[in-house]
Amino acid sequence: MESKVSRRLTQATAPEVCAHIYAPRLRDFAPGFRYLTDINAAHLLMLHGTGLIPVDTATTLAQALLRMEREGADAVPLDPQREDAYFNYEARLMEVAGADAGGRLHVARSRNDILSTQDRLRARDAVLALLETLAETRGVVLRHAAAHAETVMPGYTHLQAAQPITYGYYLAGVAQAMQRDMTRLLHALETLDACPLGAGALAGTAFPIDRAATAQWLGFSAYAPNSLDAVASRDFAWEILSAVTIATVTWGRVAQDLFVWATPEFGLIDFPDSVAGTSSIMPQKKNPVALEYLKGKGGHMLGLLTGSLAALKGTHFTHSGDGNRETMRGFWEAMTEAQRCVEVLRLVLEHATPQPDTMLNRARRDFSTATDLADMLVRDAGMSFREAHHVVGAVVREALDRHLPACEIDSTMVDRAALTHTGRALKLDPMVVAQCLDPTHSVAARTAAGGPAPTQVRAQVETQQATLTQHQTTLATQRKAVAARRADLQRALEELASAKH
Amino acid sequence: MESKVSRRLTQATAPEVCAHIYAPRLRDFAPGFRYLTDINAAHLLMLHGTGLIPVDTATTLAQALLRMEREGADAVPLDPQREDAYFNYEARLMEVAGADAGGRLHVARSRNDILSTQDRLRARDAVLALLETLAETRGVVLRHAAAHAETVMPGYTHLQAAQPITYGYYLAGVAQAMQRDMTRLLHALETLDACPLGAGALAGTAFPIDRAATAQWLGFSAYAPNSLDAVASRDFAWEILSAVTIATVTWGRVAQDLFVWATPEFGLIDFPDSVAGTSSIMPQKKNPVALEYLKGKGGHMLGLLTGSLAALKGTHFTHSGDGNRETMRGFWEAMTEAQRCVEVLRLVLEHATPQPDTMLNRARRDFSTATDLADMLVRDAGMSFREAHHVVGAVVREALDRHLPACEIDSTMVDRAALTHTGRALKLDPMVVAQCLDPTHSVAARTAAGGPAPTQVRAQVETQQATLTQHQTTLATQRKAVAARRADLQRALEELASAKH
Amino acid sequence: MESKVSRRLTQATAPEVCAHIYAPRLRDFAPGFRYLTDINAAHLLMLHGTGLIPVDTATTLAQALLRMEREGADAVPLDPQREDAYFNYEARLMEVAGADAGGRLHVARSRNDILSTQDRLRARDAVLALLETLAETRGVVLRHAAAHAETVMPGYTHLQAAQPITYGYYLAGVAQAMQRDMTRLLHALETLDACPLGAGALAGTAFPIDRAATAQWLGFSAYAPNSLDAVASRDFAWEILSAVTIATVTWGRVAQDLFVWATPEFGLIDFPDSVAGTSSIMPQKKNPVALEYLKGKGGHMLGLLTGSLAALKGTHFTHSGDGNRETMRGFWEAMTEAQRCVEVLRLVLEHATPQPDTMLNRARRDFSTATDLADMLVRDAGMSFREAHHVVGAVVREALDRHLPACEIDSTMVDRAALTHTGRALKLDPMVVAQCLDPTHSVAARTAAGGPAPTQVRAQVETQQATLTQHQTTLATQRKAVAARRADLQRALEELASAKH
Amino acid sequence: MESKVSRRLTQATAPEVCAHIYAPRLRDFAPGFRYLTDINAAHLLMLHGTGLIPVDTATTLAQALLRMEREGADAVPLDPQREDAYFNYEARLMEVAGADAGGRLHVARSRNDILSTQDRLRARDAVLALLETLAETRGVVLRHAAAHAETVMPGYTHLQAAQPITYGYYLAGVAQAMQRDMTRLLHALETLDACPLGAGALAGTAFPIDRAATAQWLGFSAYAPNSLDAVASRDFAWEILSAVTIATVTWGRVAQDLFVWATPEFGLIDFPDSVAGTSSIMPQKKNPVALEYLKGKGGHMLGLLTGSLAALKGTHFTHSGDGNRETMRGFWEAMTEAQRCVEVLRLVLEHATPQPDTMLNRARRDFSTATDLADMLVRDAGMSFREAHHVVGAVVREALDRHLPACEIDSTMVDRAALTHTGRALKLDPMVVAQCLDPTHSVAARTAAGGPAPTQVRAQVETQQATLTQHQTTLATQRKAVAARRADLQRALEELASAKH
Repeated sequence: MESKVSRRLTQATAPEVCAHIYAPRLRDFAPGFRYLTDINAAHLLMLHGTGLIPVDTATTLAQALLRMEREGADAVPLDPQREDAYFNYEARLMEVAGADAGGRLHVARSRNDILSTQDRLRARDAVLALLETLAETRGVVLRHAAAHAETVMPGYTHLQAAQPITYGYYLAGVAQAMQRDMTRLLHALETLDACPLGAGALAGTAFPIDRAATAQWLGFSAYAPNSLDAVASRDFAWEILSAVTIATVTWGRVAQDLFVWATPEFGLIDFPDSVAGTSSIMPQKKNPVALEYLKGKGGHMLGLLTGSLAALKGTHFTHSGDGNRETMRGFWEAMTEAQRCVEVLRLVLEHATPQPDTMLNRARRDFSTATDLADMLVRDAGMSFREAHHVVGAVVREALDRHLPACEIDSTMVDRAALTHTGRALKLDPMVVAQCLDPTHSVAARTAAGGPAPTQVRAQVETQQATLTQHQTTLATQRKAVAARRADLQRALEELASAKH
Repeated sequence: MESKVSRRLTQATAPEVCAHIYAPRLRDFAPGFRYLTDINAAHLLMLHGTGLIPVDTATTLAQALLRMEREGADAVPLDPQREDAYFNYEARLMEVAGADAGGRLHVARSRNDILSTQDRLRARDAVLALLETLAETRGVVLRHAAAHAETVMPGYTHLQAAQPITYGYYLAGVAQAMQRDMTRLLHALETLDACPLGAGALAGTAFPIDRAATAQWLGFSAYAPNSLDAVASRDFAWEILSAVTIATVTWGRVAQDLFVWATPEFGLIDFPDSVAGTSSIMPQKKNPVALEYLKGKGGHMLGLLTGSLAALKGTHFTHSGDGNRETMRGFWEAMTEAQRCVEVLRLVLEHATPQPDTMLNRARRDFSTATDLADMLVRDAGMSFREAHHVVGAVVREALDRHLPACEIDSTMVDRAALTHTGRALKLDPMVVAQCLDPTHSVAARTAAGGPAPTQVRAQVETQQATLTQHQTTLATQRKAVAARRADLQRALEELASAKH
Repeated sequence: MESKVSRRLTQATAPEVCAHIYAPRLRDFAPGFRYLTDINAAHLLMLHGTGLIPVDTATTLAQALLRMEREGADAVPLDPQREDAYFNYEARLMEVAGADAGGRLHVARSRNDILSTQDRLRARDAVLALLETLAETRGVVLRHAAAHAETVMPGYTHLQAAQPITYGYYLAGVAQAMQRDMTRLLHALETLDACPLGAGALAGTAFPIDRAATAQWLGFSAYAPNSLDAVASRDFAWEILSAVTIATVTWGRVAQDLFVWATPEFGLIDFPDSVAGTSSIMPQKKNPVALEYLKGKGGHMLGLLTGSLAALKGTHFTHSGDGNRETMRGFWEAMTEAQRCVEVLRLVLEHATPQPDTMLNRARRDFSTATDLADMLVRDAGMSFREAHHVVGAVVREALDRHLPACEIDSTMVDRAALTHTGRALKLDPMVVAQCLDPTHSVAARTAAGGPAPTQVRAQVETQQATLTQHQTTLATQRKAVAARRADLQRALEELASAKH
Repeated sequence: MESKVSRRLTQATAPEVCAHIYAPRLRDFAPGFRYLTDINAAHLLMLHGTGLIPVDTATTLAQALLRMEREGADAVPLDPQREDAYFNYEARLMEVAGADAGGRLHVARSRNDILSTQDRLRARDAVLALLETLAETRGVVLRHAAAHAETVMPGYTHLQAAQPITYGYYLAGVAQAMQRDMTRLLHALETLDACPLGAGALAGTAFPIDRAATAQWLGFSAYAPNSLDAVASRDFAWEILSAVTIATVTWGRVAQDLFVWATPEFGLIDFPDSVAGTSSIMPQKKNPVALEYLKGKGGHMLGLLTGSLAALKGTHFTHSGDGNRETMRGFWEAMTEAQRCVEVLRLVLEHATPQPDTMLNRARRDFSTATDLADMLVRDAGMSFREAHHVVGAVVREALDRHLPACEIDSTMVDRAALTHTGRALKLDPMVVAQCLDPTHSVAARTAAGGPAPTQVRAQVETQQATLTQHQTTLATQRKAVAARRADLQRALEELASAKH
């Protein structure tokens, strides 16, 4: 009972509530500790700056905060009867600074605005780290895209060979999607950039506090403009979580491609043993464990997103346990897992090794150049595309029936089909037909903007690289700004701690 | 079989496939028709402009497209054996323009890029319409926020009276959240602003097309830079759907507030009969049907988001039926429902009528000014906040035990509690204690930035109104640009149709 | 306003409420019509039977119900101002039977118990139909399983060849999972088998009704034992929806197998053209449209399940619009789609054609018999399994390095590896090694219970067939019972309609 | 590299794979340890029983297993390079028993069947524990239902007073739903009751093993009949998870009721301080922390269900990392959390204290007896129900306009409304009207089967208690059987360990 903060309640908390609700909350004490310290420091400096606490109390508190920071999270005894991280932090602060000084810091604020601020600080760091790794991964993909701009392979739709592409072109497409993944996360950083501190429980305070100052100390651009919204809302988190879920589902699609392409049956991609798993029983196995991890991760993230939004759904627009704690539970797991995921993705895309001979051979034998043949009939024989499509469909039919690979189709087969289906004798140049059916030629010819021709791919990579560089600059600037503000905060706290008075 | 496009396949499609897969796809024929016409017009103008089809064919096709546009979607016979909207459109075009001309339009493109372009055009219109209604709704909320800046009511956390606020302050908080809802959707509009047309099946084309021209005709800023990504990706849709889901969950929280506040037990809000439902059996009932709709809608949206992402999950990064069709099924339903939802929300927020007497009375009798009392002890009696919290907790405990409402707490009770718990005799001024306990005074004093003091709320409304105006200008500009491009397209198509040659 | 039932409300319903909430509800009028008629008939017969309405009113109502049944759902004018199906039905009934008689049927009941009853009746029919098609599909799978008990193919784990199996064995596994799918749905039928009629709004009634009688007329085993629970709960629907989601995810996994096996690269399965789609541009394409549909369907269902439960979450345990209407929206869509899905699944499994030569050839060349080799070393050479695993791993490594297929491994390679890794000279019989590496021999030897040996597979099929027959008997019995009760109801209604008095 | 099992792979596993994929898997080592030991014991006894390993090896292994069991999970050094729990267990076993003996246990099995078996054993224990607590909770609810069979309160629909009920009736409804929750979990126990051990990697084994024996040792009724299905399927887990999700959503609805009823505004329920939380700033607060936990839990569970099924979706029907590991991740969290949830629910329902005076007073003043008045007009004045509904609607309208509570409605008001709306003078007996408006009388009269009359509620409780007792017997029987088999297994292992040979 001693640990209970309120004098209005007259019973100890039930063991079920402690064990099942409060104790699990305290698992986040350690990862949140440094943010709680920063918040306390910023609030202290502001209270001191506005004269809301006298200098001697301020100095005592500054010394206590520095000591707690030095001793670290592990030095704080955690008691679930105290409900949550904040109350346990405060209890320790009152031990270190004395009950009177320790009890003076919690003026003009509440756990609600502290929690909302802490969530944003912690999320900001997590998103920045994720973005940095994602930027590196994009760099890896773009490097390989450029390197393989001429590595011809079959392009698939519906997992059926469709038209020849290059592995570099494929990777440039993946990198393009990753660019949007980053843009979404960068937007989410803007959404969270508003400091709730000073919003109090939901209704601000009558103390003449300086919210701009605390926002500044904590590296925010501004304070959250409505205090109710500031404590009630976590949509920055759902925005991040949505962006992460969309991203991991896309990365899972890439993993799905590699998963199938890496089978001996396809044989387009190989991986070093270092990213594979073994079998306990089958000595020949080399299991694509990293790819399976990536394939499944979108599902995991979708579950965390669903769980968070479903927990929020039906709550009131204000602070509540379900609205602000239960819903954030999945968020931190998601950020940890997203970071892991993008590191595994980088590993996979760095080490996926295209097999050019197999790739080219498959592209020659499957019928992925059939469209080129039809296009030629449009261009050279004046057919309508639909007519050309029919003629080539019949040629393919015949080749399949005769078990011929695509590369053995010749001009007489096409002439015959044209005669049968259109009544026209074409007398096509055998060389032209052969060229149509050559995947390398097909790819080289596809020079329309955005297409797989090597020149196009290199241009795409260049444009994307410029955007990547810009994104990296933005990230570096933000990181630096956050670090600088934090150094200022630390310095100011130390000065206050050593203030003479 | 006649209706089957491909000569490579030699059997009619199985009835189950027609009935269960293709027929349901055709339900979207009508809503998608105008976009298909625009795409065909833009592609035709580009093919003509680049010399890829001769002028007489172009004229014939332009005339046919205009006729189809005039006759409307209903004039197109729909046959599921033809698989989807595009093939049914093309079949009709070949009837109207003749098989040869009709067969010449589908050069240098594929259903894949058409579908991706159509999805974006249709989504763009839907998002613009949603944003316009959302902007109106924000306007309504801000108007009421200003009007009720002094309507004092209890503010709740955990559905327990916490601190006094005003109804205007509450609404300003809601409007602040809606501002972020709009920002997310505006970002999503940027994501979708890249034209896939010309990306072909997945590998562009060897025909010398002008993708910038078609992008321009269709009102896009640019063409999608990688053709594989252009047909494989629909993340613009998940971004929109996430934004909509987050928004509807938030609106549902507001509905949850009103749902409880509108009960006779709370009695804070009243609604006109026009937004209520009846009972078949209970003559006294006035059921909050609009609020229940809003409460449930976040769940519905979350299901559509989950279903779409789950359908996508595990597909390959390319075009496929599950990746591009099954996953988009829920998207259109979501856009329709989001539009309905925001209209119901506007209705509700326009008509929710606060009951000022009940609101004030509840705020006086519940203990929501207890924090003000504690704050006063900090300010005037030099207590630490934690100490003041304990003293006031004891006062509340006594009031509850004696069944006194908060407004009957007096200075002697506080003095007594302070003496018991801190050993200090305070001799507080009875007037000061009474003022602390007056909700109107409490609200007026909460002048810290972002707080509920009427001046603060009016300032918040003003700032938000400025952002709203800016958002509305952006929307109007986009709408006008889209309309102008569409008028250009129509004009050019008509000119081509009447070209002499 | 005329159409509004309640005199307590004094305004017409707002257009947004009509258009966005009530009108969409009426889309279910037609599919629900026959159940509403049955419920009215049963209630009427009960009221008459207990003397709660006089015989002449009863006769008039019986005649009116029969007329409405004859004229069908389309004869009922639908007005959203009347809120829902029930009130529109009642309005028509009052036209047909006169306002006085028509107004007497709604005694001792409410829309709440009617809706709950209607949901169960409609769900019962949908589940029975689904189970019947599922039973047929299981029959198809078991037939093919028996036919292919000796069709050797590679068995995969992690999409890497693992050990040889047969196609029949694979199908027997699928059928085993489908048996559990059916069992779950049969359990759900038990859950819904409790009639809510007479539960009223939530608190039963003071009229001396006979709930057992209405339950009996409507084909239920009993009435729902607590009236609040009877109107508040739809967990029967979530139980069905969960079972359907689990089932479709499993079927999607089967589709995923066939999707990959049907590629030319794997070449294990072929499909007739009737289940394939075409390309608008690529003349060679034969797209696995039915498989993609099945692959995506689990995602769709998961979304409907999520949406339904999320809409329910946070509602009160009683009747409400979000709790009983919004949450059931997805349920009917799920039942329709599940029925389609199982029909497409039946089509696919009926027409999937294994390619025995390719299957056997792949199994010979990949390394899926490596475990057999290791097992032999355990059995014949006394190695520990872990040791044998190492030796064979080294053999595989050598074969891969030398680009040998598995079927070219010989006893000297094994001897050499054993010597290197264990120091022992084995001198294995070349014939024994060859036998180990023969997939047909491997499969035939795997006679442990539940394994792929043809005898085992045939035994599994036989056992499963017995359970299937039992399930089909259960279904037929239930169908017959429901039909018999419905015929009784119809007969009794007709008798009442023609009663002389 | 030393820790890598396979000789086929020639590189150490990449650090990202170890840190992000394998290391997280090992978190489940401790909770799974005892099941792994049991599986090893059962497999060993079977191998020894069938003569597949000689007695001295068997004895050595039995001794080693017993030692490992004694030393516990913490004595096993965990190395992520070894991939998972099984390989780390085996490595330790080879240390303890020697490499040769230790390497002989993994014959005729695979990690795949071990993992599937372990998942079922662990799930079985978790479900049994959950069911036991759930049964206790049902007992609590039924006890309170009986105690409060006459505690009259308003019954709500749409959170508006609808008709009077009793608190006991409400609880009986909740208990009825919980009965179905238990039935579903009991069915799921049947689904998981099939032992996969001996299914091997996916294709059984050629060793003459005795699967019935291992199934028996491990407390299963039978072995899983198809070995592919046995390793590929976890639908038992989704069935459990669905049942748990449905249950927690329902419990959350109950929590939502109590959450609103416990507000001072409603005042129907009180809770002791032991289940409430405090505020850091508002001294008066008593926050419903346990209820918020329960409200949010359904969302959490729904997320875990969604995440699991979405991770599974798109995998192949066989063993894979995403299909069997990623999808089970959420399952264990769900079981832990479900157990917590039902314990908090029991606490809440045990301690929720109805406030009979407030309850009755509200029921008297709100209009929840209006239906009784209408029913009386039907019964005593011969009106049709629809007509009576109109008359009472007008009476309510008048009372609201005059600000009269329901209990002040008198017979002249009803007479007047009847005259106005039907033209008939009724001259109702004032006593009869007063009786209609008395909630206690209303409840007592609602004697229709399943209704709130105290006799009915007591009958419901009795019937439910009988089913509960039956469920508890089933549970106790299963527990005893599992424990007995486990004791047999332990005894046999000890005998084998001390075998002389």
